[in-house]
Amino acid sequence: MNELKPAAPDLGGGGFLRIRLDLSYDGGPFNGWALQPGLRTVQGALEEALALLIRRPVRVTVAGRTDAGVHARGQVVHLDLSEAEWLGLGRSSALDPASSLLRRLRGALGRVLGNLGGAVEVHGAALAPEGFDARFSALWRRYSYRIADGPALWDPLGRHSTLWHKEQLDTALLNEGASRLLGLQDFRSYCKPREGATTIRELQRFDFSRGADGVIVATVQADAFCHNMVRSLVGSALYVGAGAEPPGWLYERLIARQRDARSVLAAPHPLVLEEVAYPSAEGLLARAELTRARRV
Amino acid sequence: MNELKPAAPDLGGGGFLRIRLDLSYDGGPFNGWALQPGLRTVQGALEEALALLIRRPVRVTVAGRTDAGVHARGQVVHLDLSEAEWLGLGRSSALDPASSLLRRLRGALGRVLGNLGGAVEVHGAALAPEGFDARFSALWRRYSYRIADGPALWDPLGRHSTLWHKEQLDTALLNEGASRLLGLQDFRSYCKPREGATTIRELQRFDFSRGADGVIVATVQADAFCHNMVRSLVGSALYVGAGAEPPGWLYERLIARQRDARSVLAAPHPLVLEEVAYPSAEGLLARAELTRARRV
Repeated sequence: MNELKPAAPDLGGGGFLRIRLDLSYDGGPFNGWALQPGLRTVQGALEEALALLIRRPVRVTVAGRTDAGVHARGQVVHLDLSEAEWLGLGRSSALDPASSLLRRLRGALGRVLGNLGGAVEVHGAALAPEGFDARFSALWRRYSYRIADGPALWDPLGRHSTLWHKEQLDTALLNEGASRLLGLQDFRSYCKPREGATTIRELQRFDFSRGADGVIVATVQADAFCHNMVRSLVGSALYVGAGAEPPGWLYERLIARQRDARSVLAAPHPLVLEEVAYPSAEGLLARAELTRARRV
Repeated sequence: MNELKPAAPDLGGGGFLRIRLDLSYDGGPFNGWALQPGLRTVQGALEEALALLIRRPVRVTVAGRTDAGVHARGQVVHLDLSEAEWLGLGRSSALDPASSLLRRLRGALGRVLGNLGGAVEVHGAALAPEGFDARFSALWRRYSYRIADGPALWDPLGRHSTLWHKEQLDTALLNEGASRLLGLQDFRSYCKPREGATTIRELQRFDFSRGADGVIVATVQADAFCHNMVRSLVGSALYVGAGAEPPGWLYERLIARQRDARSVLAAPHPLVLEEVAYPSAEGLLARAELTRARRV
């Protein structure tokens, strides 16, 4: 989950070049995205691989920090390299620096991950446009959440990324309840509070649709998410989908602005960060300034 | 893979009732379907769970014996129970014997599998129609094989059931080559030979199609398969799809009727037994007789 903090991003001054990486990962074998001493995390693996290539410690900034067990198909990070480091990447091969970084980073990740090779895949590496910040430039983040509601839909091959829910769910009820949460709202009732962090977010999409395979996929999109927000929204919606609460209950909980005894987090393993959207190159600098200012 | 053997099936005489089970499994954590002493196999887990319920050793007969690492979404087995055993299943609950067997077998499998719970899911349990034999009554078996041809398509969440192929493949070339193998043929060139077993099979479908997600799915359907046949067909087709051999090469290899130095088995983990088809109740007895007679 993404959490906005007041620290100003490094916009790549001082002769540094900003690099954007696009990546996917299976969150199952990791203790979440964020670095934790002594634990296997996605950030830890990525930074270890980058350090092998660049020959110094490298820090990355992520678009959407994911909890333990949560996956990503469209995660974005940035890192800063000196011009010499960037040009050095392409020097020993016929490839340009970006292609060389992509190829060598894949190799280094394979060495770092060992028998978990393939759990993290870097799909793109490129020089970022002026003003790009993986976290602060993002326009929105979109997550998916897969739910197989009934044993007939329980596919062992998908069990690591699908909720196996015993009762059947009514997608019309789910959508009726979910649609009332859209817009700019205070999502305090659906967040794990963090000191100094706002809980006001713009929920742009929250809907449920049953695919051809019978599995329900929830889509949740917002400008940003506070901690545990997607899992809390989906967890509450399950009561509505099963008929245990009326659709209006989701909105009632929202306006109560507090976490109550029925607050429930849906399991992390069916949650996937699917996409992070950014403005065009021209809009980037303006966007970074706006994001930092708007929620103070 | 299914292998026809001359042994006559037990057609359920002598007061026994024949039960059909429909199941799915993730083949990854198993050493294949077939029972092997000291190794974890799907058959071993299923028979252990059944023995817990029935309180005696139980043998099952399978429609499509799968190799180590191969998965199933539509596997079918049969087993025989005495009338007393069958009626006893429903006695202590409000459920009929079939529903009770399904529920209790799921519970027993969970206990047998421990932290692999969910790797094997039983989707149906029912009294089989007269003359039903999971193996000998089958009209055809259909397998799928997923191929992500290029790093941009490598999704970590699907890596346990998708081939990650570096070179891009041409589905038109794949289909041109594959279509020439259709029909009743001697597939000796594409089989691991087994003593006394025929290699004549009717290949009913062999085609490749690229889905909305960009991943290629091969579909292979035949009346039955000899050992390693699907993986051998797909492995050879990869040469054609990559342009290393012309489409006609697949047929040339077929009529050579021998395994040569370019015989190659595609990896097992992208292979899924999707469906096994059976005749209507009326056609079942006739079919079982025909299948045993036709390939002698």
